[in-house]
Amino acid sequence: MGRSVLKFGGSSVSDFTKIKNIAGMLQTRVENGEQLIVVVSAMGKTTDELMANVSTLTTTPKDQELALLLTTGEQQTVSYLSMVLNDIGVNAKAMTGYQAGIKTVGHHLKSRIAEIDPITFEHAFESNDVLVIAGFQGINDEFEVTTLGRGGSDTTAVALAASNQTTCEIYTDVDGVYATDPRVYRDARRLEYVSYEEMMEMSALGAGVLETRSVELANNYNIPLYLGRTLSNVKGTWIMSQAELLEKKAVTGVALDTHMMHVTISHPLPDNRLLTDLFNHLENESVNVDMISQIINLEGLQMSFTIKDTDAIQITRILESLKEKFNALDFKINEAYVKLSLIGSGMRDMSGVASKAFITLIENGITFYQTTTSEISISCVIDSENGERAVQALYETFDI
Amino acid sequence: MGRSVLKFGGSSVSDFTKIKNIAGMLQTRVENGEQLIVVVSAMGKTTDELMANVSTLTTTPKDQELALLLTTGEQQTVSYLSMVLNDIGVNAKAMTGYQAGIKTVGHHLKSRIAEIDPITFEHAFESNDVLVIAGFQGINDEFEVTTLGRGGSDTTAVALAASNQTTCEIYTDVDGVYATDPRVYRDARRLEYVSYEEMMEMSALGAGVLETRSVELANNYNIPLYLGRTLSNVKGTWIMSQAELLEKKAVTGVALDTHMMHVTISHPLPDNRLLTDLFNHLENESVNVDMISQIINLEGLQMSFTIKDTDAIQITRILESLKEKFNALDFKINEAYVKLSLIGSGMRDMSGVASKAFITLIENGITFYQTTTSEISISCVIDSENGERAVQALYETFDI
Repeated sequence: MGRSVLKFGGSSVSDFTKIKNIAGMLQTRVENGEQLIVVVSAMGKTTDELMANVSTLTTTPKDQELALLLTTGEQQTVSYLSMVLNDIGVNAKAMTGYQAGIKTVGHHLKSRIAEIDPITFEHAFESNDVLVIAGFQGINDEFEVTTLGRGGSDTTAVALAASNQTTCEIYTDVDGVYATDPRVYRDARRLEYVSYEEMMEMSALGAGVLETRSVELANNYNIPLYLGRTLSNVKGTWIMSQAELLEKKAVTGVALDTHMMHVTISHPLPDNRLLTDLFNHLENESVNVDMISQIINLEGLQMSFTIKDTDAIQITRILESLKEKFNALDFKINEAYVKLSLIGSGMRDMSGVASKAFITLIENGITFYQTTTSEISISCVIDSENGERAVQALYETFDI
Repeated sequence: MGRSVLKFGGSSVSDFTKIKNIAGMLQTRVENGEQLIVVVSAMGKTTDELMANVSTLTTTPKDQELALLLTTGEQQTVSYLSMVLNDIGVNAKAMTGYQAGIKTVGHHLKSRIAEIDPITFEHAFESNDVLVIAGFQGINDEFEVTTLGRGGSDTTAVALAASNQTTCEIYTDVDGVYATDPRVYRDARRLEYVSYEEMMEMSALGAGVLETRSVELANNYNIPLYLGRTLSNVKGTWIMSQAELLEKKAVTGVALDTHMMHVTISHPLPDNRLLTDLFNHLENESVNVDMISQIINLEGLQMSFTIKDTDAIQITRILESLKEKFNALDFKINEAYVKLSLIGSGMRDMSGVASKAFITLIENGITFYQTTTSEISISCVIDSENGERAVQALYETFDI
């Protein structure tokens, strides 16, 4: 019997009518002989409401308690959906993260899945056709409830697909993956297929539909990943291994990341202790550094890097604490920049993509402050006011 | 270091101000050198709200899913209270029922605690002074979340006190145990001490402050139980072993149970299969029979018993199904009766209490339809309109 993993995000289960409609769709698939693992997020604004309650109690909630609180959101959704399924005659069982055997490691609020025990599923499928699993959560070695951090429910779904050796369908409020953000470029093309690598670059570079870690996980276990709109007939996008894709263009997509900050630090002496301290702090505070460039010359050390704008508080704290130790340190945090990226597996085999891109920007009078390249992507930091214009220009240059 | 268990009911934690005030009180006790296990219920109307959501989805929710849903209420309260405690500098840890190692057996929604692993607590107290435990819940052998049914949070608290060999304080919205319901008799006396046995009779007989099973559990493990008003200076009531109480009165309290139904069945033949079927059904539907009287004579079988009014749907279903099999069966369900009870450990040593009580009722023109007696109590089923008058008359007769 075929087994599939389906995941529905918070906006897809934001009210009881939607939950009932999803149950109906699942029923049809069960009647067609499928066994389903369904991962759901907390209903609509539940997490925001819980966070608002917390803010009336303390400004520094303990991570462990916050995780325990937030996971009630998904626990409620799985209970509701499973009740409806049973009500319409589908044998379903609701399970929290710990009940599904999702073991995690790491910070309480940014945990990673370490292991999933497949026995739990075989046992539960003996008397059920649908297992409804709370996304975004797990349990650590100390038997403490944890959450997986940003995009965590997607990760839950992909990990379950990997452990059950099946495909993973992620349903959300977009029609699929676009070559660029349709809000930025109206004629953006929806992709029928995209490779894991391209998708990872797009995610990391701010396309924002799927978090990189979910795609990375799918890539590691070669799990075909579908992304589409909940209860829609519009065909979404399959994300799969490059080997299975025929079409190869130099550039598959253009991404614009507006949720980033650009940090520049300089110090008159190239002091290694400064960099060691900086990276230790970044690691301790779980701040991910993305683009990074460094120059050491007669004027000392100069380094630029980009981080997510959600890490604003942490980076300010880190740099101010460094400044106390290294008086001559100078730093600048700029939020008025965006990161523009070209992605395409075809870049590997086609030369001149970078030059062509830079020329396009220069001809359009768009300054770039920092650039990095990978095998299948080129990224530039530019002024945020130039973002949309740059996307359009590149879209035309590369006939995306 | 002294260790205590404290339990706060839903009305005591119905808003965040109350939660903060409770945290302050706990802090004072920790500063006085105590280790605390704090059991809390869901905040105020949370359970009702969740049930209202369920009713929009299905009229027959699966027990397992309902238990999983309802337990999110307590999970949220423990998270909030523990956050506040940590915020004011008290080392606290929030734990759900399964994290506290509360293993249960039986129906998902009416489970009983089978076992509590004390190791969990010793480990958690190594780095915490307060453990905040979700009441009303546990986990069964199938690793499914369960609830303990009516008054379940009290049971959690007493069971934790037993496993930690300490006292248990139950905080609620009453000042303590009264000799009778102050709403029925204004001059009702508040008891400073009451024995387990008396309290059990009072609970079972409708005094409604504590469920019998909690008191029974406290009795079994000889756990002194305190009942008082949350954050009040009024001295509540200690419930403890009779041996430790000096005062002995014939009658300690009068209880009036209005949440009951009186059932009478009659059948022209004393058919044992009828009774076997009846009790099997009652057990299957988890309907508890309280007072029970049976007469078999030339007119056949006649039986009366009382049950809780919350079992109305079940009893109707049971009797109608019996009627299909035993055509000659006749039954009557009466909700217009109440159960009046006199309780007192002193009854054991003093004769004539029953006669004196019956005479009081007769002199006041109060008919009683059924009576039962135990070693320390006398109960009568009377018309509900006579309830208050009967309480007052007995209060005066016995100088309670």
